[in-house]
Amino acid sequence: MSTDRIYLDWNATAKLLPEARAAVLEAMDLAGNPSSVHREGRAARAAIDKARRQVGELVGAAAEHVVFTSGATEAANAVLTPDFRMGRSPVRLGGLYVSAIEHPAVHEGGRFPAEMRHEIPVSADGVVRLDALEQLLAGHKTEAGLPMVAIMLVNSETGIVQPVAEAAKIVHAHGGLLVVDAVQAAGRIPVSPEALDADFLIVSSHKIGGPKGVGALVSRGETLMPAPLVRGGGHEKGHRSGTENIAGIMGFGAAAAFAAEGLGERNARIAALRERLETGMRKAAPDVVIYGENTERVANTCAFTLPGLKAETGQIAFDLEGIALSAGSACSSGKVGESHVLKAMGRDPRLGALRISLGWSTTQEDIDRAIDAFAKIAGRRKLSDAAA
Amino acid sequence: MSTDRIYLDWNATAKLLPEARAAVLEAMDLAGNPSSVHREGRAARAAIDKARRQVGELVGAAAEHVVFTSGATEAANAVLTPDFRMGRSPVRLGGLYVSAIEHPAVHEGGRFPAEMRHEIPVSADGVVRLDALEQLLAGHKTEAGLPMVAIMLVNSETGIVQPVAEAAKIVHAHGGLLVVDAVQAAGRIPVSPEALDADFLIVSSHKIGGPKGVGALVSRGETLMPAPLVRGGGHEKGHRSGTENIAGIMGFGAAAAFAAEGLGERNARIAALRERLETGMRKAAPDVVIYGENTERVANTCAFTLPGLKAETGQIAFDLEGIALSAGSACSSGKVGESHVLKAMGRDPRLGALRISLGWSTTQEDIDRAIDAFAKIAGRRKLSDAAA
Repeated sequence: MSTDRIYLDWNATAKLLPEARAAVLEAMDLAGNPSSVHREGRAARAAIDKARRQVGELVGAAAEHVVFTSGATEAANAVLTPDFRMGRSPVRLGGLYVSAIEHPAVHEGGRFPAEMRHEIPVSADGVVRLDALEQLLAGHKTEAGLPMVAIMLVNSETGIVQPVAEAAKIVHAHGGLLVVDAVQAAGRIPVSPEALDADFLIVSSHKIGGPKGVGALVSRGETLMPAPLVRGGGHEKGHRSGTENIAGIMGFGAAAAFAAEGLGERNARIAALRERLETGMRKAAPDVVIYGENTERVANTCAFTLPGLKAETGQIAFDLEGIALSAGSACSSGKVGESHVLKAMGRDPRLGALRISLGWSTTQEDIDRAIDAFAKIAGRRKLSDAAA
Repeated sequence: MSTDRIYLDWNATAKLLPEARAAVLEAMDLAGNPSSVHREGRAARAAIDKARRQVGELVGAAAEHVVFTSGATEAANAVLTPDFRMGRSPVRLGGLYVSAIEHPAVHEGGRFPAEMRHEIPVSADGVVRLDALEQLLAGHKTEAGLPMVAIMLVNSETGIVQPVAEAAKIVHAHGGLLVVDAVQAAGRIPVSPEALDADFLIVSSHKIGGPKGVGALVSRGETLMPAPLVRGGGHEKGHRSGTENIAGIMGFGAAAAFAAEGLGERNARIAALRERLETGMRKAAPDVVIYGENTERVANTCAFTLPGLKAETGQIAFDLEGIALSAGSACSSGKVGESHVLKAMGRDPRLGALRISLGWSTTQEDIDRAIDAFAKIAGRRKLSDAAA
């Protein structure tokens, strides 16, 4: 057994890109506070503006519509609020509709009180049910305010692509606002608020190879903006106060520039590796259940259940074989809970699912070692089943 | 004229310490998400725990009472809320009392609605008036909930130390909670929630030589905690969700370890440099007004007004002489507004004040060049006055 580690948990966090590392190093040489008007301050400001353009370009948005945050979770908390502003006038929204498979940061509903939150169910294939969305919005009482809908573009646990553009038509027909968590989509499929017709996009740096602790809320325009979550010095045009995480922002910008280029080529390579992986897995354990195999998925994700193997046990077994993968999402402090995504898909969440996710530095050798480990673990499972 | 730049705006942001830079570099080699249970995740978690101990030690608090945030502004927004929790039970506070010289992040009052916010005046010396605090709290209606008081330990614009321990006695006699913004105090004077008897402390990484975009909310205990501002995956024991800014946190930890050590020696050196600076300034322009010269100030800050010179003009003049200093605080996007601190001290805020602030790498040569520039600019001012 090799002692090298194989990292196949890119949906939890991607490895830092060399380009992002270089940008962080560059940021550390900038002495000034971006709010200062002296030369040092202006240099820091210019660096942030460059990153703003880079992130805007990744998601097809104007730089001025990118508000940097401390991550996707903060961005979700910032936008999911009934309190909006049109210029200086307050605008009150009347309810929030979130899909059942959203990340906890969205699923918890931000600043919407519990009684204003509603859930949109998903099909057994893990796809948001547009018929249910239509029905929910038809029942929405607009006297209380217009509805907000949050649907992720790519599910973090399964990689399944959601019908966001179709949902947008329904949402807008009802006069609502659409928030799209594009965290697992950016850098994997083309993302643009125009093509998706989303009003707000949420993106994260560390999922695309940038540093952790930085993200963005991207808007279609600036007419209607959420009341700021973090107030104070008036940074980010008043939408988000606090001295900017300049190293994180510059690293995010560099990662966005990388992610925006050569997407097709990277995806083709990663898709071939995943095909190799899933072929090997099926050969070693024909009873393996791979989620979303007949649905549109991003190229890098393979979520599966091995009957008779608890995901928690499986994760430890893979870790001991030198392979980092995940059981459910790595969304909170070390706990491996039941997957609300599997549950929403009507699966028994107790057995759980394992997730292998690939990234820019994943090699064929990594995949072959993952297949070997899978075969070994699947084989042991059969033995223990027979013994039971 | 030398082309080297002299950086004397450490209260806006400190230069990154070599120790913090090394920690950021180390963080960039950690592949995992701190929430992941595999080996890579556990390594990232261990690195964060180390930083938590380091930050705790700087402010004399237990590591488990340090909640990392994206900066002091977020920490202020998180703690300044009427919605607290004792375990799972909600506790409602009845009002917020902030000093007139707080940083905007505190002064804006976080999640307290405007009608629940009150201001504590300061004396002409720039010191919070304890008699006024006593009077305000005597008038507080406890039926609505207990009061919260926010007083900074060191003012960012003047460096003046506030009577926080004395204020704590008054606040606690009225059953209130005391929040202390220790952003400009940490690493400059000893800070401990026990000695200050503060219930919450706010600290920032980039003011003590760590990276920008990270800070902490430090509590005395965990019995009474604010309802989280950023919710989602349940990170930071549920007090602050979102994947951790591991590079920022590790850099913050390293800076905290540096700041906690050799404080007395560093301060003595910096105090001597400031003494040299102010002596030189008074010699060149006897009419210079130095704020807080007869009050307790931190050793690194010199806020002054040169009669006949607008701070904004002065800042540009110093910048052209190669010296970075500030006019008021660098709290928001490039704007130089009237100083609410000067105004609260009863000074005419239109002329404004300039602030020179020193740090760990400031040299005697830097100070001598600043004195030369000061003399030049003060001389020109006299000429233009005479011409006018």
